[in-house]
Formats: sequence, structure tokens, C-alpha cells
Amino acid sequence: MHSLHPLFHPRSVALIGASSDPERIGGRPLRFMLEGGFEAPLYPVNKSGATIQGLPAFASVLDIPHPVDHAIICVPVAGVEAAVRDSIAKGVKAIQVMTAGFAEIDAAGRALQDKLVGMCRDAGVRMLGPNSLGLLNVPTRFFSTFSTALNGLKPVPGPIALATQSGAFGSATYGMASLRGLGFSKIIATGNEADVDVAECIDYLVDDPDTRVICAALESCRDGERLRRALLKAAAAGKPVLIMKVGRTELGAAAASTHTGSLAGNDVVYDTVFAECGAWRPESIEEMLDIAYLFSVAGALPANADVGVVTGSGGIGVLMADDAGERGLALPPLPEPARRAALELLPFAVASNPLDMTAQVTAVASGVPRTVATMLDHAGYGTVFAYLAHVGLSPQRFASTQAELIALCQRHPGRMLVLVMLSTPEVNRALEQHGIAVFEDPSRAVRAVAALARLRQRLGTLYLPTHQAPAADTLGDVSTEDGAKRALAAAGLPVLPERLCRSAAEAAAAAQAMGFPVVAKIVSPDIPHKTEVGGVMLRLQDAAAVQDAYAQLLTRAQTARSDARIEGVLIAPMLQGGVEVILGLHRDPTFGPMLMYGSGGTAVELFQDVAFASAPVTPERARALLDAVRSTQLLRGWRGGPQYDEAALVDAICRLSDFALAHADRLESVDINPLVVRTQGAACLDAVITLRGGSHEH
Amino acid sequence: MHSLHPLFHPRSVALIGASSDPERIGGRPLRFMLEGGFEAPLYPVNKSGATIQGLPAFASVLDIPHPVDHAIICVPVAGVEAAVRDSIAKGVKAIQVMTAGFAEIDAAGRALQDKLVGMCRDAGVRMLGPNSLGLLNVPTRFFSTFSTALNGLKPVPGPIALATQSGAFGSATYGMASLRGLGFSKIIATGNEADVDVAECIDYLVDDPDTRVICAALESCRDGERLRRALLKAAAAGKPVLIMKVGRTELGAAAASTHTGSLAGNDVVYDTVFAECGAWRPESIEEMLDIAYLFSVAGALPANADVGVVTGSGGIGVLMADDAGERGLALPPLPEPARRAALELLPFAVASNPLDMTAQVTAVASGVPRTVATMLDHAGYGTVFAYLAHVGLSPQRFASTQAELIALCQRHPGRMLVLVMLSTPEVNRALEQHGIAVFEDPSRAVRAVAALARLRQRLGTLYLPTHQAPAADTLGDVSTEDGAKRALAAAGLPVLPERLCRSAAEAAAAAQAMGFPVVAKIVSPDIPHKTEVGGVMLRLQDAAAVQDAYAQLLTRAQTARSDARIEGVLIAPMLQGGVEVILGLHRDPTFGPMLMYGSGGTAVELFQDVAFASAPVTPERARALLDAVRSTQLLRGWRGGPQYDEAALVDAICRLSDFALAHADRLESVDINPLVVRTQGAACLDAVITLRGGSHEH
Repeated sequence: MHSLHPLFHPRSVALIGASSDPERIGGRPLRFMLEGGFEAPLYPVNKSGATIQGLPAFASVLDIPHPVDHAIICVPVAGVEAAVRDSIAKGVKAIQVMTAGFAEIDAAGRALQDKLVGMCRDAGVRMLGPNSLGLLNVPTRFFSTFSTALNGLKPVPGPIALATQSGAFGSATYGMASLRGLGFSKIIATGNEADVDVAECIDYLVDDPDTRVICAALESCRDGERLRRALLKAAAAGKPVLIMKVGRTELGAAAASTHTGSLAGNDVVYDTVFAECGAWRPESIEEMLDIAYLFSVAGALPANADVGVVTGSGGIGVLMADDAGERGLALPPLPEPARRAALELLPFAVASNPLDMTAQVTAVASGVPRTVATMLDHAGYGTVFAYLAHVGLSPQRFASTQAELIALCQRHPGRMLVLVMLSTPEVNRALEQHGIAVFEDPSRAVRAVAALARLRQRLGTLYLPTHQAPAADTLGDVSTEDGAKRALAAAGLPVLPERLCRSAAEAAAAAQAMGFPVVAKIVSPDIPHKTEVGGVMLRLQDAAAVQDAYAQLLTRAQTARSDARIEGVLIAPMLQGGVEVILGLHRDPTFGPMLMYGSGGTAVELFQDVAFASAPVTPERARALLDAVRSTQLLRGWRGGPQYDEAALVDAICRLSDFALAHADRLESVDINPLVVRTQGAACLDAVITLRGGSHEH
Repeated sequence: MHSLHPLFHPRSVALIGASSDPERIGGRPLRFMLEGGFEAPLYPVNKSGATIQGLPAFASVLDIPHPVDHAIICVPVAGVEAAVRDSIAKGVKAIQVMTAGFAEIDAAGRALQDKLVGMCRDAGVRMLGPNSLGLLNVPTRFFSTFSTALNGLKPVPGPIALATQSGAFGSATYGMASLRGLGFSKIIATGNEADVDVAECIDYLVDDPDTRVICAALESCRDGERLRRALLKAAAAGKPVLIMKVGRTELGAAAASTHTGSLAGNDVVYDTVFAECGAWRPESIEEMLDIAYLFSVAGALPANADVGVVTGSGGIGVLMADDAGERGLALPPLPEPARRAALELLPFAVASNPLDMTAQVTAVASGVPRTVATMLDHAGYGTVFAYLAHVGLSPQRFASTQAELIALCQRHPGRMLVLVMLSTPEVNRALEQHGIAVFEDPSRAVRAVAALARLRQRLGTLYLPTHQAPAADTLGDVSTEDGAKRALAAAGLPVLPERLCRSAAEAAAAAQAMGFPVVAKIVSPDIPHKTEVGGVMLRLQDAAAVQDAYAQLLTRAQTARSDARIEGVLIAPMLQGGVEVILGLHRDPTFGPMLMYGSGGTAVELFQDVAFASAPVTPERARALLDAVRSTQLLRGWRGGPQYDEAALVDAICRLSDFALAHADRLESVDINPLVVRTQGAACLDAVITLRGGSHEH
């Protein structure tokens, strides 16, 4: 049994701080459960009253003459510790602390919170909160919350679960969902997350038989590994996780830092991790609910990203085609048998994809279902949209079409049929029961399908944390370019045959041995930015030039920084041609080592043409990383140019990933800028390694 | 009086093809108007019936013994010509042809359509359609449409107008708007647009006193100038135009080409023209309605793009800040006086922007309106959002807050107050009457405000078609690089002191005169792509190298194409440094000469880092064009580098614009790739001019 089970399935509940006033915070949970018909015993605990909202009350949880396995605490902050202690003594398995005034306020609050969670852990008791708005187990009517959203909107059971850090975010989502008739399985607000966090709730909800799709919202994440595991578990179980992370833009992040004490992780890393672990990050609450609705009705992801559109309006068909293209869906042409069948039925139809039925459809018996059938029968589109204007507003007239569409859907179990029309709630409910989702706005319908199609694609390149990095040498001194390259070369990354030289003569000899032209660079742990001091000289054509360069580089370095420790001059072959890219690695405080791949030159900054991947990276995921960066096209016969050695680039990414894992305890970051990819092979032309706790150095 | 006035304001109407069956196409307009209470005389015309839907009917419009100034025609296509002829003979001022089967079907249909429009023009009669779903003048209940959307949804008067080519698109928009309680002034579907098009409808609606905001939808545009004028007129009148153009993506354009016979214009040109003319292009019908709703409630554009957020939930505040940042709104910090006032009211508030009232607000009398007041009183935000969860679902409890917010809004007439909450329709209507818009979804609220703020910004850089290009020389022979550059130089564009040489000796002398290094390029009208035949040689350092190059270039050209006409070799100085950009010009079939500016190198294609502007371009609009391209940052001290000569670039764009206008009748396109921008000045390094009807040549 999942360790959060007692939190959602109490057999008897003490409400510590229960109030007689059904409008007060301490009174609402009791009222909601009494009104809702929660069936397990409820024991109000309050020093003052003998009876609270019609139930006998107790001065202490310890006075309750029955077993109690769940405590809801909403006493003032000063009384919380005693309430927790008494609850543990009483033998509860789960505690909800709704009271606020802990880590979100000050250090004393954090200390008290830490104490509470310590008490609970010692006793093997799970604690929700503090500062939690509570939770709902909708089927059992365990409405343990003081959210006023339940005043007007009664919870309805349904397949959607919601786990959110912010209670207000939960109320907003609950309210919007309820107004559109969506039902929930479980809702939980984790608040300060002293013990239970959103990640663990997701883990629990994957096991919950009442839950088919999981909505979640984070403001921060303290345990990235737990979140990854929960998301991967959900992906494996076929339960989509739609997870919002607030603090997306710089503006948003500024707002987040004033709102919570927790460090907002790097936003693009959240994007990366969510995608790698098969989750979807909606842009708005409404989008989250659209996708949750679609999946909970359809019951599965679309079989593929191909869609067909049947429409009564050419214009709306084009609009939907636009939306589909922008969101990564494909509209393959209508196969010839489907085209013939459609034209046989509707000679004036525009029998392509979108398939415009034209006004003729109204003159043909069962015109709409028969047209949709031609597409389902003869084309392999994972999803078929039918735009039907406002026919659903006339239920009687629509009844036979509705029945035929439902029958059609049952004949094609692996396919998703989505209707776009105006209709009554009753029509919608009838269709939804048979797996047919209904949207009012064509664009929102397309976007919801596109999100699910993308989730299907993500299942093919999920993050696999099982890779073992090969044993590695010790890291050595990586404070200079030379040292960093040696370490990377030892890890199997491609490095040119370079030589660190200590005299002009040695430099000239080295250049002679490797062949001209060469490059010469100053090597000093005190000069991290070589180009700024003129510390790099290119295209040296002969021995004399190399000797001159040696002297000049030393002079320039000493001029720039008289006390710089000079280790010598690095002589390297001067490469011609190839495509420059950037490879990097950094340790994210939440999610650990992240690989970075991006375009070389100015594009990486101007266009954010860069993508990230959690280490370890498999060759397959490395290839997906290449596909996520536009400049990768430059490697692939751009404008008739050559094909560069992508395999060498993939290998370099995987070896950097192994390097990251082998030295995870010491590495802060690695920058290989540029890595030049050639028609055969690749080479790190510059490298900087920063160690944990250290400053940026060469 | 506007020439479309008779179309919307008939004094008496003949319905030619009226049907006794109120469900048939010929029966619906009559039924809608009878049910709606249209007050002008209605005369059904139908050969068969003496009485139609209770009205006396006539065999011909000519039999009607009263004046008739408007004819609605829905007879079969074979009878349309006679109906039009008779209507003109009867003296109508306006004709609606609802019948389909004209230009959208085949050439014969197009010929008949052309004939009809010719008859109308000769008679000074305006014609809507053919293939039009009709029009609605909602305040007068002139419901002249056969759209079944009116079966369930009665038109409600309101400030939103809708002009759409596609009737089905109009029905969809009407239906979605009606379901959310939005009212309309006028709705018109232009169908085949043989006479009246969407642009002219917009022009009319700007003058319409019942219309405050105009929604429009195009599938194509046959008269770009008319559309521009209409949009600029709307912008000048302060009536936002929210205009959808279907056929956005390649997929969408493919669908559009099967749907209509009209050429879909270049989509990015539509984007450009809409923006230049102060209109907004929504991404979805829902977004269009959100913006129309907001403007029709608020009555004005926001004073600026700064927003303040007051929220009862930190999480939702961050979400809104995210959305605001992504959509180009700014959240300036809360000014100190506002901060102090807020903290005096709510000591536990997070007094920044977003301003998180925390749960404390519920304990303070008039907490919400007083907090909103601190922001309106002490900060200059054009828009203030207040996120109020679900308080609007309890109208009694919300009543005093509602009244105080309305009073507050009246004290701050130039400011926009937008509430985000769940609420009842009655609460919303009450707030809306006083200029306060209400949204359910926080993200949609922010996006609607962002659109209006962007429209405000666009008013500052509107397209001004009044510029006169200076008189220009004749164009000369522009078939080679040399000729193209001469023409551009004559127009004042910066061209290097180059020389077309006819012998090796002449080339060497020219190079000597201009100073080394130089570039040598083959000049031949038969070799448009010089680099492909090795026709360009760079970095020639002395006279001998130039003489060698001359001979080599001739050999290469003759090897590549033995019959090529060789005009000689162009010798030009070899520039060092500078930033390469692309300038271009092409003649859009709908909107005429369009200037293009983009990043040099591969970025223009990889990242579509390019922007367009209609000619003529003022220096101010040229600067706005620079701002729209990310790579322009490379000119502006990128990473501590130099500032390049933006003024020279702006001047080059303006001169190319003048060149485009001066030779508008002859030019098809100009490509200056690259133009190098230096720290002082700029230079066209290569140029290709294509003439109308000609092929691409140097």
C-alpha cells in the first residue's frame, strides 16, 4: 500500500480546531464533509464546545474514546505542536496541518516546521502541510479543505486528479473545472511541503484507480529525482501528467522569488525534465483543463500525430489546418480510396484534407457520419476532427447523427474522434460517455490533441536514469585549457594533437611536427579569457612566426597581468572548415548534471538556439537533442553543402555525459566552445571546466 | 452617406425566392425577421404562392405595388440573373445574392457573376455576394440570413461588428459570442465578393455609430490598397480591427488553395500590413472574442503597456506575470508610496508587483477595493488586474466590493481595471456596464490586455502612404551585378567604388588605383550565380594576382558555360569587418512593393530573422523594422563590440523604398545580399534586380 494512502483514505478523522461557525476556517472542512455525506466517523476537537455542528466534541484528541487514524489540524500556530504530539500519541497515520505561519514566514517558523516533521517521521506518520489548503477524496466525499470554492461548487467525481503546491492555484483550477462540468478523483494542496510534496502525490495518484489523468502545479521543487521518478512512473502507466510550473519568464521569476522562500530552478531545465519524463507543461490553466478533459474522455493518447479534418466550413477547416501545422500535427493528404468514397457520397465536396463537406451534406441522409466514416475507414489518421457548427444546440435534430457517430467510434476503437461544435451539456455528456470529446473553439480542440500527440512522441525518447558511466581516471588539474582538454581527451572526447610548450624553440619544433598552419595560445590559470588579452594567435605559417608568437604572447600576458602564473604556450593545428557548435554541462541545483548543445557563433545567444538534456544521455536521446536545435541543419547538407559527421557529435555528447556522471561530485560546469564538427570527426577547440565550489578558471 | 448604407438600412425589402417553409433557405430570412420584429415592409416574391409565412406574396418583384429599395435573392442559380435585372428595374439600391454556384464553382459561374456585378454597377446598385450567407443589422432586427445559427441563438444588440468572407466562419463566431452573452451591431458575410468585400465593410463599420470594435475574417484579399485604407481609417477612428486571415501555415495555405480559387497572399505580408495599419491578428476565434469583449467593455485602449497585478494568490500572480512578460507587457515595480499604502492596509502583504494581498485581505474591511486603490492612486499602470478567485459566485457577499470597485473605476477614468474571477453572469453584467471586464482564465485576461496594449503601440508607427518618391532616372540595364549596383547607386544607395574592366591590364590598374586587397568577379548576364562557377576571387593582394585572377575568371566562366556573354570582370575593394545584413524588395501581388530587412549569413533562413515593411518607409518605420530583427543587436555594441552605423542602414532602407516607388511599374524584386554595415557607412556588396515579367538575372 502506498504510504500516502492513509492521507486520502482515513477510517476515522479528528478535526483539531473544529469550529461551530461553519463559515470559519475551522468550521468549513466539517461542514463540507457533513453536507457531502462523508461516511467515516468525524470527531471535532475543541476545548470550548461540547457539540460542534451537531457532533459531540472533545477537548483533546486523546479524549476520543475510539481509534483515530487521521488528524486535521487548524488550531492557531501556537497550538500546532501540541496537536501534532497528541495526534501521534493517539496513533494517527496521517496529519494535515492547515495552519499557516511556518517556513513561509520566518526562521522561527521554519524551525517549528522542521520539528513537526521530525516528530512525524519518528512516529511513521505522514504530514501534509503546514500551510496546506487540505485535500479532497471526491468519491468518498472526504472534503478536507477550507477552500471557499466549495461553497458554491460541489465536488463531482471524475477521472482528473490535481496536486498543487499553492492552495489558491488549486482552488482556481477546481473552480474553472467545476464550472465546465469536469469531475475530480483527488485534489491535494501540499503547501509548505515539509513532508509530502507534489512529486510524491503524483507517484501516489499513478496508483490511484480513480485517476486517469494528473494535473499538477509547482512553484519550486526540492527533490528533482523524486519528481523525475514520479513523472516516469506516470508515463509508464499511461497516465498523462499536465504540470504547470509558475515562474516561466524573467518577470514571472522575479514575482516567484518574492512569493516563496525557495529557489526557483532554471526554467528551461524544468521544460527539459518535464519533456524527458513524458509530462506536458501547459501554458494556462485552461489549456491544462482542455487536455485533461480530452484525455479523460478519449481514454488514450492518439495513435499518431496525423489528423484528418472533416468540416462543414472551408474557412474553419483552414483555420484548424493552420493550428495543426503550428502545433506539430500533420495533415497527410486524403488517401485515394477515401477521396473516392467521399466524392461518391458528396459529389460537390472538396475531398482533400481538410475534407469540406459543403452545404451538400445537409441534403444527404446521414451525411456527416458517413463522411467521417470514409476517413476513419480509409485513412490512418490517429485523430479525426469534425467541425459541425452549432448542430449540437438542437438535440432532437442531432440525435440520429449522434447515435451514428457513437457507433462509428465503437467500430474504430484505436482512433480519436473530436467534435467541434456548439451544443448543449446533455449532448456533450452523451458523446463523452462514448469517448467522443466536444470543443467549442476549433483552435483549442486542435491544441489539446496536439499536446496529447506530443506526449505520445515523448514516450519514444524517455529519460532512462539507468546508464552506468564507465570508471574514470581522477580528474587532474583542470584549471587551464590544456588541463581541461586532457581531462576531456581522457574521457574520449575528440581533442587535437596539441602540445603545451615551455620555450619558443619547443613551440617551433612542435609546430613543425604537427604541420602548418598552427594556432598558439597562452596557458595560465590566471588568464581565463585569453582573447581579451590578445592571448590567441591564429594562422601561424612557419617556425619563425611561431617563435615570434611565443614571445609576443608572453609579453601580452605579462602586460595584461604582471603576476600571472604562465605555464607556457599551447601549440595546436589550425583547422579549416567544419561547423562550430557549443557543448556544455552544468549542475542544476534541482536536477543534477544537464548537458547543453547549441549552435556556434552568435546564434546561441541571439536566438536561444540551444537545447538541454539530463545526464545520462543515450545516443538516441543525443540525436533527439540535435533535432531540437535549428542550426543542426548546417550539419545536414545545408544549401547543397557537405554532410558533417553527426555520429562524431553524438559520440562527443555521450562521452561528455559519461564524464559528467563519473565526476558528478566535483564538476560544476564544462564549456566546450567551440566544438568543430568536420566531415570526418570533430574536435574541441576550447574548453573550460569549473569545479564545484571553485571559480571559473581555465 | 456611405455607399453601403442601403445594404444595412433598407426601407422596404423584397425576398425573391422566399419560401413558405420556414426551415428552408428561402424561408429562414423571412422567419428570422418576422420573429425578430423587423419593422420595414417585407415583400415575399415567389411564383407559386399567394401567401408566404402570412405575408401576401408576389410573382415578381415588379408586381410589388410599393417602392422597394432592397432585394434579397435566394432563387436557384438559373433564376438569379432575371431576379437581379427585375430588382434593378424596380429601383432597388442594394441586392444580396445568397444563391451559390458562381465563381466558386467554375468559369461559367464566374462569367455569370461578372455579368451580375456589371449590371449592378451600371445601375449604381450595390451587390452583396453571390454565395453570401447574408447580413444582420441587429438593432433594427434586419436579420437577413439563412444561417441556422439563429435558430437557437437570438441576436442581441451590442458594440461588436463582424465582417467575414466565409459565412460559416461568421456563424461560428456569432455562435460562440452569443453563448457567452456578447452582442453585435452588424454582421455581414461577403461570400464571393463580386462587389462588396470585407475591406469596404470595415470602412463602413468605422462610420457606424453602433459599432465600437470590428471583428473580421479574410480568406483572401483582392484589393490590398482598399484594405489598408479601411484599417488605417479604423485606427484613426479608435475602433480596433481584429482580423483573422486563414491560411497561416504551409498546411493551412494548402487547405486554402483547395478551398477557394483565389491566390492566398504571402502570409507574413498580411502580418506586416495588419500591424502597420494598426490592426490585430488573433490566433483563434476565442482570442478575437476576448479582445473584442475587453475593448467593448473598457471603451478604450490601455494608456500604456505597464500593468499592475493585485492578487489573492501568489501562485496566480506569478502565472499572470509570466503571461504578461511573454506577451510584451511590463510589470514595473510598485512605487514606494503605493508600497507603503498597501503595507499600512495589509501588513502581511507581499507589497510588490504582483501585489499579493494574502489571506489577510479577508480580515480587512473593503480590503480588495482599498488595495486596488493604492495601486491606481500611486502607480501609473495603464491596466490593473485583480485576481479574486471565486468571489463573484456569491453575489450578495460580493455586492459591497463590487460597488466600491465601480466607484474606484469612476475615479480613475483613464485606467483599465480587469477582474479575474469566477462569477455569475449578473455580477459580470453589472461590472461591465461600468467599464470593468471580467475573465475566468488569468492567462486569457492578460493576453487580451496585451493585444490592446500592442494596438496602442502600433498607433505610433502607422503606415503613411503619402510619401512621394523623388523623380528617378530611367533604370538602365540591370541584368548584371554591375548594372544593378549602378541603378542602386543612382538611387543613393551606398556602393563601393567598383570598376568593370575589360582586360587584365585594366583590372590591375583599377586595383592599383583603389588599393589592395581587392575582389574580382565575373560579369555576365548569363551567369547569375557567380560563386557556383568559381566566379568570385577574394583577397587579391597585388597587381600580378589581379591579372592572374582576370584570366582565371574568364577561363572558369567559359568552362562553366561556353556561350556565356562575358561583359568583363568587376574589381572592387575588399572590405574588412562590419556586419552583414540583407536588404530586399519584392512586389506582393496584393499589397505592392514590400521591403525586407534581415540578418546576414545563415540566420535569415534558419531563424526567419527577417521583417517586412510596405513601401514607402519613413526613417521612423525603418528604425522599427530594425527593432523587429534580432540580429540587429549585432550592430548595437554586441558583447562589448563596436556600434555600427545604424543611420546609414536606415538611410539605405529609405532609399531602397524610394527606388521601389520610383520604378514600381518595372521592378519585381531587388536583393542586396549582403549589405555590409560598417562603423561609418555601409555598402552593397552584391545586388540582383529582377524586372517584372523577367527572369532572375544579375
